Amino acid sequence: MERCQVLGKISDEPKRLTRTFLSPAMRRANQLVGRWMREAQLKVREDALFNLIGRWSSSQRHARTIIVGSHLDTVRDAGKYDGPLGVLIALAAIEQLRAAHCTLPFHLEVIGFCDEEGVRYQSTYLGSRALAGRLTKTDLDLCDAQGVSLRNSGIGKVETARRQPRDTAGYVEVHIEQGPVLESRGLALGVVNAIAGQTRVALKFVGSAGHAGTTPMDLRRDALTAAAEFITAVEMSARGGLLATVGQLTVQPGASNVIAGTAELSLDVRHQNDAARKRACQALRTRARDIARRRGLRCTWHTLQETSAVKCDKGLTRLLGESVRTLQPRVNLMPSGAGHDAAAMASLCPIGMLFVRCKGGVSHHPTESVNRQDVAAAIAALTEFLRRLKARHV
Amino acid sequence: MERCQVLGKISDEPKRLTRTFLSPAMRRANQLVGRWMREAQLKVREDALFNLIGRWSSSQRHARTIIVGSHLDTVRDAGKYDGPLGVLIALAAIEQLRAAHCTLPFHLEVIGFCDEEGVRYQSTYLGSRALAGRLTKTDLDLCDAQGVSLRNSGIGKVETARRQPRDTAGYVEVHIEQGPVLESRGLALGVVNAIAGQTRVALKFVGSAGHAGTTPMDLRRDALTAAAEFITAVEMSARGGLLATVGQLTVQPGASNVIAGTAELSLDVRHQNDAARKRACQALRTRARDIARRRGLRCTWHTLQETSAVKCDKGLTRLLGESVRTLQPRVNLMPSGAGHDAAAMASLCPIGMLFVRCKGGVSHHPTESVNRQDVAAAIAALTEFLRRLKARHV
Repeated sequence: MERCQVLGKISDEPKRLTRTFLSPAMRRANQLVGRWMREAQLKVREDALFNLIGRWSSSQRHARTIIVGSHLDTVRDAGKYDGPLGVLIALAAIEQLRAAHCTLPFHLEVIGFCDEEGVRYQSTYLGSRALAGRLTKTDLDLCDAQGVSLRNSGIGKVETARRQPRDTAGYVEVHIEQGPVLESRGLALGVVNAIAGQTRVALKFVGSAGHAGTTPMDLRRDALTAAAEFITAVEMSARGGLLATVGQLTVQPGASNVIAGTAELSLDVRHQNDAARKRACQALRTRARDIARRRGLRCTWHTLQETSAVKCDKGLTRLLGESVRTLQPRVNLMPSGAGHDAAAMASLCPIGMLFVRCKGGVSHHPTESVNRQDVAAAIAALTEFLRRLKARHV
Repeated sequence: MERCQVLGKISDEPKRLTRTFLSPAMRRANQLVGRWMREAQLKVREDALFNLIGRWSSSQRHARTIIVGSHLDTVRDAGKYDGPLGVLIALAAIEQLRAAHCTLPFHLEVIGFCDEEGVRYQSTYLGSRALAGRLTKTDLDLCDAQGVSLRNSGIGKVETARRQPRDTAGYVEVHIEQGPVLESRGLALGVVNAIAGQTRVALKFVGSAGHAGTTPMDLRRDALTAAAEFITAVEMSARGGLLATVGQLTVQPGASNVIAGTAELSLDVRHQNDAARKRACQALRTRARDIARRRGLRCTWHTLQETSAVKCDKGLTRLLGESVRTLQPRVNLMPSGAGHDAAAMASLCPIGMLFVRCKGGVSHHPTESVNRQDVAAAIAALTEFLRRLKARHV
């Protein structure tokens, strides 16, 4: 918790926490966390992407590697825990194993990824995708606000950061929940079974503007009443684990005495089951078209993004669950609605994730907060998990 | 129609039509229309508010006055017909009576009101309210964007513009419909039976923002889904001549992956029957509160404006209807959803109104359009109306 405070002061901006890919603050954060890693007797290096890596090598020559970690970058005006907490909990677990003079049948690495939030390049998972071999030429051509491409940002040879599946036994990430489920159930920790897939859509209803005082109801083509009907349909569609949200709505012309001519809205649909998500999107698309047709409007539907769900590894998840069960009465198996480095790492190796309760479900905000006991539980759970993983390997 | 074109070029702005209270363009417009009035043998003056008045005095000494007219000011970037058409049709009708060597048992005045749209002082009906004795001290203290009060704008003594009910037999206004009803029914003219009352409300639903990917549906307090439910209720409430419109909706924070924390919306309710309007508003207020309570949100409701309905005079309306029936097969009796000078004049004398079909129901926009035949019909109807009024008086 103290380390989170110290790390939370390392920022690119004077009065708020902002640490973006390869920024001066990120370099200082890597130096500081690297020092803590060295104090825990880890061998420290930065790879080509400036992912910070602390390695505890096993004495067994042909051992594979278990990676634990999260990211050290932040959003703008961030909280102190989203990312760094996972790196520091991993380090604390290793310190506990070191203190117990533990030996390991696998190499163990703590990684602080260089970019998960994607603030600088409007992309995500730059660090973990480099490990997974998923950074493309298109990614390297991305330019930041100053016009500097990722290729010319000062990174090394991307290929050298790449890991091989045959060498990598698994990736486990601890992260704040960023949601209110654990808090509402009175649990410190939760085990993630999948990272939900996501569809993002931009919709527009186009009717015609008109005078609110002189256009009879039956001669209107009101884009906002159409949007309202659709928003209600979206809410009703969200059953069986489906999350469906309209977060943006813009009405034109937007005057109190003028019927809305156009309504533009966002749609965000998530589910841990891709087929369920796609079925829901298809049904909503049909519904939007029906609403528009019945009301004499036009409707446009643009799918902006589709991300598949990522399943957590059954073995790692069971082991995480058993470890959590030594600390709290119930284990909450839950999907992660937000994306994480684990999603990128899933194409390299089996993944597992542990969630820590956070206050009010708030993240990406300075008021982000976790409590001390929950963090202690997370350290204990991860330590127990590594012990059990060792026992399984021996 | 030619006069509308010429008058439409008299503007305070170079490439669009804007004529506001006492502006240079308004002074030029009064000069031009005043010249046309003089050519029709009217005695022309401007009163203390710079209402332009053309008078045809009756030879009967104790005759009362019939006023016909509309306003000569416009909104910003206006069309050419909203207001001026009514003044010029009144003038054309007088020209026809003059050509027929008609004599009148009443004094007849054409008035081009100085301010109906209220652009300069964010108030309405400055000219017609002065005639009706309804300009208050508060109105005189209103300041324009330059800080000039109405009192110091160059107007004369407001009391001198005031008319007496005993001298004023009626006010009749011709105006474009500003709505699509006549067009949809294939009629050139409509007779107004009332000017609808109006309630304007500002509502706000306050829930809590949250992550669209991590907040389960049952833990959300989504302000936008509440607003959507309310908007649907508003639309459903609009029956039996009630018009109910949400034209503005603003959502905060307004990001595609963030659940809406607040939704602010406008509500505009109009009806020719005040009791029906008030009942509908009360029912919607209860509904908003119920929606908020059921969803765990707060709801605020601020009534910004309440204007009572104004009934048109039965006698004048019947006479207008008979006159219209000489020109078209059916007479459409309809309320006016928009306000007009006639609403202010109603506190002085009986009023009547005639609507002229306009293209697509569009007004307050450069594309505002009426067709030549409809305008000819309106001139003929008003002329016939004045003949019939004369016959009734003799």
